[in-house]
Amino acid sequence: MNIHELIRDLREPAKTKIVLLVADGLGGLSRQPGGLTELETAKTPNLDACAKDGVTGLSIPVLPGITPGSGPGHLGLFGYDPLEYRIGRGILEALGINFAVGARDVAIRGNFCTLGADGKITDRRAGRPTNEKNKAAVEKLRTIKIPGVELFVEPVKEHRFVLVIRGDGLGDRVNDTDPQAVGVPPLKAEGADAASQRTADVVNAFIAEATKVLASEGAINGATLRGFATYPKIATFADVYGLKAAAIAVYPMYKGLARLVGMDILDPGQTLQGQVETLTKVWNDYDFFFLHYKYTDSTGEDGNFPAKVDMIEKLDEIVPDILKLKPDVFIVTGDHSTPSKMKSHSWHPVPTLLLADMCRADEVTEFSERACLRGGLGQFQAMHLMLLAMAHAGRLGKYGA
Amino acid sequence: MNIHELIRDLREPAKTKIVLLVADGLGGLSRQPGGLTELETAKTPNLDACAKDGVTGLSIPVLPGITPGSGPGHLGLFGYDPLEYRIGRGILEALGINFAVGARDVAIRGNFCTLGADGKITDRRAGRPTNEKNKAAVEKLRTIKIPGVELFVEPVKEHRFVLVIRGDGLGDRVNDTDPQAVGVPPLKAEGADAASQRTADVVNAFIAEATKVLASEGAINGATLRGFATYPKIATFADVYGLKAAAIAVYPMYKGLARLVGMDILDPGQTLQGQVETLTKVWNDYDFFFLHYKYTDSTGEDGNFPAKVDMIEKLDEIVPDILKLKPDVFIVTGDHSTPSKMKSHSWHPVPTLLLADMCRADEVTEFSERACLRGGLGQFQAMHLMLLAMAHAGRLGKYGA
Repeated sequence: MNIHELIRDLREPAKTKIVLLVADGLGGLSRQPGGLTELETAKTPNLDACAKDGVTGLSIPVLPGITPGSGPGHLGLFGYDPLEYRIGRGILEALGINFAVGARDVAIRGNFCTLGADGKITDRRAGRPTNEKNKAAVEKLRTIKIPGVELFVEPVKEHRFVLVIRGDGLGDRVNDTDPQAVGVPPLKAEGADAASQRTADVVNAFIAEATKVLASEGAINGATLRGFATYPKIATFADVYGLKAAAIAVYPMYKGLARLVGMDILDPGQTLQGQVETLTKVWNDYDFFFLHYKYTDSTGEDGNFPAKVDMIEKLDEIVPDILKLKPDVFIVTGDHSTPSKMKSHSWHPVPTLLLADMCRADEVTEFSERACLRGGLGQFQAMHLMLLAMAHAGRLGKYGA
Repeated sequence: MNIHELIRDLREPAKTKIVLLVADGLGGLSRQPGGLTELETAKTPNLDACAKDGVTGLSIPVLPGITPGSGPGHLGLFGYDPLEYRIGRGILEALGINFAVGARDVAIRGNFCTLGADGKITDRRAGRPTNEKNKAAVEKLRTIKIPGVELFVEPVKEHRFVLVIRGDGLGDRVNDTDPQAVGVPPLKAEGADAASQRTADVVNAFIAEATKVLASEGAINGATLRGFATYPKIATFADVYGLKAAAIAVYPMYKGLARLVGMDILDPGQTLQGQVETLTKVWNDYDFFFLHYKYTDSTGEDGNFPAKVDMIEKLDEIVPDILKLKPDVFIVTGDHSTPSKMKSHSWHPVPTLLLADMCRADEVTEFSERACLRGGLGQFQAMHLMLLAMAHAGRLGKYGA
């Protein structure tokens, strides 16, 4: 029996409210042996108080040693096994530019490239065009029509764009047409099954047309495609948990990931303060609130230790405004670690706290990597976090008699 | 390879003895933040000494956040994956009244109800009859004969009884005939497959006869059935572990669960002292002893914090009598937590200690939820406990060369 079936069997209606605050890339590393991590350095009196009254632990996003991207990182937190539910790169790229992909879509990452007179690639990134030049080239691609399908072309930045093919019976088992090399022509698309061959036929026709309409664009005179991906079949939050869920995120990618699992996407503007104001405004309308905070990750990616410390402290400051709403379950975690020492996502377990009436408190009085090691949740798989959220919210009945 | 196959491959004969002492619902919660749990409050010098010399940890009965009933709770401790082995409600009800269900049985929960002249239910519980009236009505039902099967009707209490149908090729995929509502007639039983339709046919004939024989019983003039369940196919303790196992329990339900996995059921009377005397008496006859202590659960269910503390202290007092027998492996755990704060089973991990010559002791010197968090067993799945028991008993060989 899989976990979602179990939850559907056991779940019980309740009026309780759950807040999941995801500080992206929360976990970190000390700069040198014996030092403190970003979270250990930050002054976080409010999170520390939650750790004291609540229960803490460390979340393993996928498996020990596995560094997740944003997709698997969030799917895990949402209770979907990230090794079972996979989000193709094309879909993630489309989510990242806030394109509302749907069930009949194949989403694909596109790169503008430069082709020589012999049709061979001379620059895989078309000289890294400006975003303006990208947009102009995308406008040309938008003139292309292929019978039987709808096409959407959206600019990303520099040489990158997204192509979405909408139609019936389209597969995504299509090879990348980007040969990942110069001096060779782009590859022809081929489908590994009948549905995917249909996609490949559309794509080959599209590329042929693209070469024609781009002919006058100088360095941008060709395009390659990769990361073919259909919309993943994912049961919604309402279906699995019986929760009416809202996503309060600033960045398109995270709105997109929340939309994948059927959350309502609210528009809180661009600030953390705006997110909390939105949370307050819609408090009576939802059971579950996913708040996403980006800057713990982006400062980590920048390798900026003090900036990440600062962003953690800013997050800590708004915690009282969330607690004022009296959530029945308040969870703070991250989708993965992003140590500024590594300037990248990492595999390290993520500090997590859960505050609820029926949580069994541990001896932890501080929210940090080191302290959470002694926490009552132990080290747990991220995909089990929603089980704990549901249980502490009084929303799961007994299994078996 | 599943765990039972692995154990069959690796197990080695030995003369060692294992005692598994299950304090039902052992784990608890503090009454307010910062307070102590029932186990932390109780004076348990003997269990603390075991924790000091042994290794401790916390058992997760099913999955994080999942609250088990007694069935899955015990199956896990016995080393059977509680998500794979499911015990139907009818079987559990039969076990609870000490009915020896077998491989050819379908067990069903019955409710006496009151039917109006139009055949519609006016009271789903027949006015909650006395146990005496229940027994009288059951006697009437016992007169019913259906060709090709044996029928057993057993009183439970008030409006509840158990029906067991014994025969060949009977399925249990039959809908409840209890419509869970008044003002409507009982539902007809229908089988989801051929074997289950055979059961449904027997049941429909039984209900038709029941309505006739009960006609003169006043408020008890009908019956509904639910929780159809065949006997689960479970390999025995002897088959999986090569252990000759005895159950020393007071309550029928736990005797029944032990019988399911093939343990011998001893009769220790009604007291803990009687249980330990029985243990002493049969010490030379078995390899494995399951001792079940109910009162840590029942006081928790009552929401009586001091009574649960008291019951834990009473359990602690008999520990020296068990240790006198020099078990090679002595385990104390629970099938789940029953915090008196919740008056119910819960999902919280269960304090566990294992004392054996070859255990690697940790720094824990006290048997409590908080202390066990620092224990050498960590947080582990209950279904892995028997692997640890077998290993520490010198009964598992090396895996691979």
